[in-house]
Amino acid sequence: MIEHTDFVTEPWRLRATGLDLAVLAQTESIFALSNGNIGWRANLDEGEPHGMPGAYLNGVFETRSLPNGEAGYGYPESGQTMINVTNGKVIRLLVNDEPFDVRYGTLHRHERTLDFRAGVLRREAEWSSPAGCRVRVTSTRLVSLVQRSIAAICYEVEALADSVRIVLQSELIANEQLPAPADDPRAAAVLCKPLVAEADSALGARAGLVHSTTGSELIIAAVMDHDVDGPVDTLVESVSFPDLGRTTVSTTLEPGQHLRLVKYVAYGWSGSRSLPAVRDQADAAVTGAIQTGWEGLLIGQRSFLDDFWTRADVEVDGDTRIQQAARFAMFQVLMAGVRAEGRAIPAKGLTGPGYDGHAFWDAETFVLPMLTYTAPSAAAHALRWRHETLDLAAERATQLGLEGVSFPWRTIRGEECSGYWPAGTAAFHVNADIAAAVVRYVESTADVEFERTIGFELLVQTARLWRSLGHHGPQGGFRIDGVTGPDEYSAVADNNVYTNLMARQNLHAAADVASRHHDLAQRFGIDAEEVASWRDAAGAMFIPYDNELGVHPQSEGFTRHQVWDFDTTTPDQYPLLLHFPYFELYRKQVVKQADLVLAMYMCPEAFTDEQKARNFEYYEQITVRDSSLSACIQAIIAAEVGHLDLAEDYLAEAALIDLDDLECNTRDGLHVASLAGVWSALVAGYGGMRHTGGQVSFAPRLPSGLTRLAFGLILTGSTLRVQVTTTAATYTVLDGEPLEILHYRKPVKVTPQEPVSLRIPVATSTGRLPTQPRRRSPARRRPDGRDRPNPQ
Amino acid sequence: MIEHTDFVTEPWRLRATGLDLAVLAQTESIFALSNGNIGWRANLDEGEPHGMPGAYLNGVFETRSLPNGEAGYGYPESGQTMINVTNGKVIRLLVNDEPFDVRYGTLHRHERTLDFRAGVLRREAEWSSPAGCRVRVTSTRLVSLVQRSIAAICYEVEALADSVRIVLQSELIANEQLPAPADDPRAAAVLCKPLVAEADSALGARAGLVHSTTGSELIIAAVMDHDVDGPVDTLVESVSFPDLGRTTVSTTLEPGQHLRLVKYVAYGWSGSRSLPAVRDQADAAVTGAIQTGWEGLLIGQRSFLDDFWTRADVEVDGDTRIQQAARFAMFQVLMAGVRAEGRAIPAKGLTGPGYDGHAFWDAETFVLPMLTYTAPSAAAHALRWRHETLDLAAERATQLGLEGVSFPWRTIRGEECSGYWPAGTAAFHVNADIAAAVVRYVESTADVEFERTIGFELLVQTARLWRSLGHHGPQGGFRIDGVTGPDEYSAVADNNVYTNLMARQNLHAAADVASRHHDLAQRFGIDAEEVASWRDAAGAMFIPYDNELGVHPQSEGFTRHQVWDFDTTTPDQYPLLLHFPYFELYRKQVVKQADLVLAMYMCPEAFTDEQKARNFEYYEQITVRDSSLSACIQAIIAAEVGHLDLAEDYLAEAALIDLDDLECNTRDGLHVASLAGVWSALVAGYGGMRHTGGQVSFAPRLPSGLTRLAFGLILTGSTLRVQVTTTAATYTVLDGEPLEILHYRKPVKVTPQEPVSLRIPVATSTGRLPTQPRRRSPARRRPDGRDRPNPQ
Repeated sequence: MIEHTDFVTEPWRLRATGLDLAVLAQTESIFALSNGNIGWRANLDEGEPHGMPGAYLNGVFETRSLPNGEAGYGYPESGQTMINVTNGKVIRLLVNDEPFDVRYGTLHRHERTLDFRAGVLRREAEWSSPAGCRVRVTSTRLVSLVQRSIAAICYEVEALADSVRIVLQSELIANEQLPAPADDPRAAAVLCKPLVAEADSALGARAGLVHSTTGSELIIAAVMDHDVDGPVDTLVESVSFPDLGRTTVSTTLEPGQHLRLVKYVAYGWSGSRSLPAVRDQADAAVTGAIQTGWEGLLIGQRSFLDDFWTRADVEVDGDTRIQQAARFAMFQVLMAGVRAEGRAIPAKGLTGPGYDGHAFWDAETFVLPMLTYTAPSAAAHALRWRHETLDLAAERATQLGLEGVSFPWRTIRGEECSGYWPAGTAAFHVNADIAAAVVRYVESTADVEFERTIGFELLVQTARLWRSLGHHGPQGGFRIDGVTGPDEYSAVADNNVYTNLMARQNLHAAADVASRHHDLAQRFGIDAEEVASWRDAAGAMFIPYDNELGVHPQSEGFTRHQVWDFDTTTPDQYPLLLHFPYFELYRKQVVKQADLVLAMYMCPEAFTDEQKARNFEYYEQITVRDSSLSACIQAIIAAEVGHLDLAEDYLAEAALIDLDDLECNTRDGLHVASLAGVWSALVAGYGGMRHTGGQVSFAPRLPSGLTRLAFGLILTGSTLRVQVTTTAATYTVLDGEPLEILHYRKPVKVTPQEPVSLRIPVATSTGRLPTQPRRRSPARRRPDGRDRPNPQ
Repeated sequence: MIEHTDFVTEPWRLRATGLDLAVLAQTESIFALSNGNIGWRANLDEGEPHGMPGAYLNGVFETRSLPNGEAGYGYPESGQTMINVTNGKVIRLLVNDEPFDVRYGTLHRHERTLDFRAGVLRREAEWSSPAGCRVRVTSTRLVSLVQRSIAAICYEVEALADSVRIVLQSELIANEQLPAPADDPRAAAVLCKPLVAEADSALGARAGLVHSTTGSELIIAAVMDHDVDGPVDTLVESVSFPDLGRTTVSTTLEPGQHLRLVKYVAYGWSGSRSLPAVRDQADAAVTGAIQTGWEGLLIGQRSFLDDFWTRADVEVDGDTRIQQAARFAMFQVLMAGVRAEGRAIPAKGLTGPGYDGHAFWDAETFVLPMLTYTAPSAAAHALRWRHETLDLAAERATQLGLEGVSFPWRTIRGEECSGYWPAGTAAFHVNADIAAAVVRYVESTADVEFERTIGFELLVQTARLWRSLGHHGPQGGFRIDGVTGPDEYSAVADNNVYTNLMARQNLHAAADVASRHHDLAQRFGIDAEEVASWRDAAGAMFIPYDNELGVHPQSEGFTRHQVWDFDTTTPDQYPLLLHFPYFELYRKQVVKQADLVLAMYMCPEAFTDEQKARNFEYYEQITVRDSSLSACIQAIIAAEVGHLDLAEDYLAEAALIDLDDLECNTRDGLHVASLAGVWSALVAGYGGMRHTGGQVSFAPRLPSGLTRLAFGLILTGSTLRVQVTTTAATYTVLDGEPLEILHYRKPVKVTPQEPVSLRIPVATSTGRLPTQPRRRSPARRRPDGRDRPNPQ
């Protein structure tokens, strides 16, 4: 955990007023920019010092062998690792031949600002060279949300005291040297020099590099062009080499004079088109950007974000830090997915190399809820990507001896890349998670075209998987044995409640969609027998219950296992997976992340209110949150069962996971799922929003620390704004058709421009506050919104 | 499976009257010689052609990295692979400058004979060179059971028609090129050129090579010397190079003249002594062998084996093929372990590189029973080896967060080398298997010194493991969750019956031994509380039972899993592990090898007769025997529950596993455990022998194919000979003290030289014959003792 004393709490931006090199890598992730297609870590313009250089293109990876101490049938033989592509961020500055490097000379001032509304990263620095020449450097960087192949930097130098010779070297650098990875399974494999030089060119202020990859057989082109505004005799020239493109701008600035360089960088890549085609695509994109111009790019960016915030902004009154963190989170989630278009949304977005750049179930379960209700086309794109990988998933199912499709646990292009099957292949719930995301998207958009072209096949092929994966047991229940649920501290267990409930939803949804679209059903060879078998399996789904304890076991038999010895576990032994063997974790009652508790959020109708309260209390005692996918879910259920202040603590943990580097790996990239979970914790937690069976419902209630909460949802094309105070909730349809919702289980019709205000019922008694494992309680929030250390 | 049409069925030897190069590698394993210290595969003297060259020294290995697609805490980082050491078998023959190679010229006759009483491999060949020169080649090879560092070959050439120039090149060859391994996880890793040349020397008829290994840091010396008997002008000279020692013998033979070369090879190795010490040790050993002389070695070998066979021979009347196979099996098992002395007994003995030369639980559970009752000092040595690795096992337990010791699942030197923890680390039963072997040895020898110096610590440290691995569950039973039993088609399950029963025995045995030796108990810090905690855990041990089916589930919940779809599984999909993913195997009812059925043999008192019959029938239906550790155990329980002819089928499968290459991997080495299981199937199956609670009991009964069975057991220093006919059993104490045994649960006292004959009760009805999975029934035995194809 880091306390960024440099960070300033402001509602619409994240500003760091200093430059602490000890946490440089973390801030490179936090201030990263992306549009879902291009990702640029917030490395300093001058390239060095750096924590972790990073420029990524969604879908650009290299293969690597996946070795195994002992081989096994069906193990993936090759993995995929996102690679650091050509770095287009670098603009080196020489002041009278001395390189601008914050480690030398005197840094008088340094400020970085991530502006959530402008969608840019600004930097201002005042620096004196070792020889004493003082300059002001200002840069503004964006990765365009409008032109998805374009990133750009406006870089300005001003001479403050003396006349100085200035040289700018704006570069494209391929095959940067990267730091060695940590000995942590969650870090990334490092591939040494993954880019093979294919072509380079330089002309005027433009330079380009084309590279290929060996195993994944991709062509990657990067082109930069520049607008230069400086004194009359400013020289501009470009050169290129296999791994370097460089445009050099040189001039002399008198005190008060500026040199302004706008750098436009375009990326193109393909696994199927030719080198000339990819090269030309990048050239065309950069030409387009130059035509738009820097101001045009800024205007486009602002307008894109205005549209988003108008409909989606979440207002949190009473806790300024959470207000800032929530908008930061939403901004980063939006950037991670909004222009991915046909590509996955990786666990770290495009902010760092963690988890090898892989996408997991995180996308569908944690990220897509926010995008579905705030930027639905991004959600549709993410599911289209899954649809495009159906063939690979069908092959994998066949290899595993199953019907339908089996989506990968972790992947970039679609092939299974998990090197550890008990927490990979066995985690079949990813298939139901995808199906749930389809249902959520279709129900919230009524997008029938999507349902027919994308959703239908995803639903029925995953249903086929479940039907073949489970069986009707000797005592009648439909059992799904030997699978791994969300909690990765258990594995290969029978009848994981989350998995079985999600499979049940999946089977029902497939049966429903097959009944709605007879023509498609016919095309996919679905007959009445098959639909009946789905409904049979769903109807008979076995959900284990521990009658003695009065709780649901996470999986069959789970509650008979020994409880982990939390009292003798020391703080430095967390996360447990780095200090204890899997076998020891699997055989005991210790939960890495919400599993049964997640089931209560995803399938709320399967639990009574009393069960939810008891289950929550039971699992609180054994959940250690060694995963970033937990706190936001615990916040939601804590709020539902009435522990609003505990929910606030969990919300803060989810929201500050990267801002405070709570898991000590923000350097490897942001925890996009946890950030998206902040939105869910606010909307589904305090807002009490659920969307089941096509019905949107709310049961809002604020914790003691907040005075007002407001959020927006896009539902079947209408924008619903919900405002919650301590006593009432106000529902407003901003545009579109009227909506029918539930407020505390009571139907309400909301008509455009006619807000409906409804009383929030008085909270009933909620019983005792649940306890967490020793030293694993979330940090308590102070009334002033700042954390204080955990008292334990 | 192979039909060796060359093999002749004879009671005391295995003779192959032809040379089928297609199955050369298999016969190299079958005719291999070993003494437990040195292992020589039966490669042809002239070196080529070969299937798999192999010379092994027990304990000589190289380390190799154990890679993991995804890392995990506690995974072994380095494996151990037995290496092919300096080949001392090669004697090349040149006939008028043409190399003797069976692939060229004309092979008129070729015969190999493994003589179980002489302990030698004989070879006779008549060959004409491409140019037409005819010679007779005779060689006799032994690996000395008396001088454990020595192997020797007596090689003779006779000119049959013309005068021929003969050159013999007797060699030591290091770093032979090996065939690439098959894509089969049960095969071995191949290390390229593992031997680093350190020294070489040649003088007269002697040459020596010294090598080292890099990772395991061993010094290995091989020295050869020769006696030559030929025409007067026979020349002998030796040379040496880093990877080659060569003694060349040249002469001219007139028709009818012989050249006889006796080659003595000595090996020495050490991980701690210096190069000169190891080199000198091998030199000294070869000098000793020369002094003993070839005839002396032969006499010593015969005498050693006479002593063994006199006490241990198993006579099987009525099935000549099983008689031969049983003696072959016992001979190979004896060779695998008898002079291992401080080293492990690997799964393949020293007959091939399979399983990397690792020892498993096979040794204690399958091999030591035969050795305990027929060559008890070999059993003691094997357990001493375990004792010597206690420190490593204690370290491993600590690493895993457990008390006591955790022995490795697979190893050469003692470190865990398993690269797959669900079927490695999680198979904790190996610890109870070792404890059971200790109890068996102590009870059958009354060796108190062994119990105090070796057995005590093994029993109490393994008991400590169990106490920490299990826990008293909420409903009172002592539970051992999340472990893997013998059946590797299930893993990481709760309360595996075999494991829990064996752990119970282990805990009781430790409590007993601690009570017997108060001084030792004090030294190991065992107080009354600890002993009580062992007895508590043992007394409360949870043994799941399925009341609805009336059978024991292999592990808790097992009988609720889906039954494997045997009907659609094709014959070429066996072994299943090569064609289906682990997750699919683990979640279904399909059994690789006897697990619950093994429990009924190892812990017979825990089951009623009715339970045994029902359990056996139940598990027969789902056991596919993809492991060689199954058929012998199924034979034993089949016999116990009255299916004597089925037992015969299983016995034959265990006995012919290598002779008929039933698992298609005999090329990688013999299945020593299955071979030892032949003895158990005869003695514990048809003999009905059990040894529990210090009491030896018999319940003999012959199948329809046999007319008489006799076997010998060494019990507390006495030799008991048991002869079984269809109607009676005769018990004779050949030497030593009187013995008290049970015959069909009735106590009988047998006094030396006073045989006791007792009637065998009439068999009661046994119910219907169990069925096996489709196409997985054992081959039916014909009345004439030959197999016929399975009718399915």
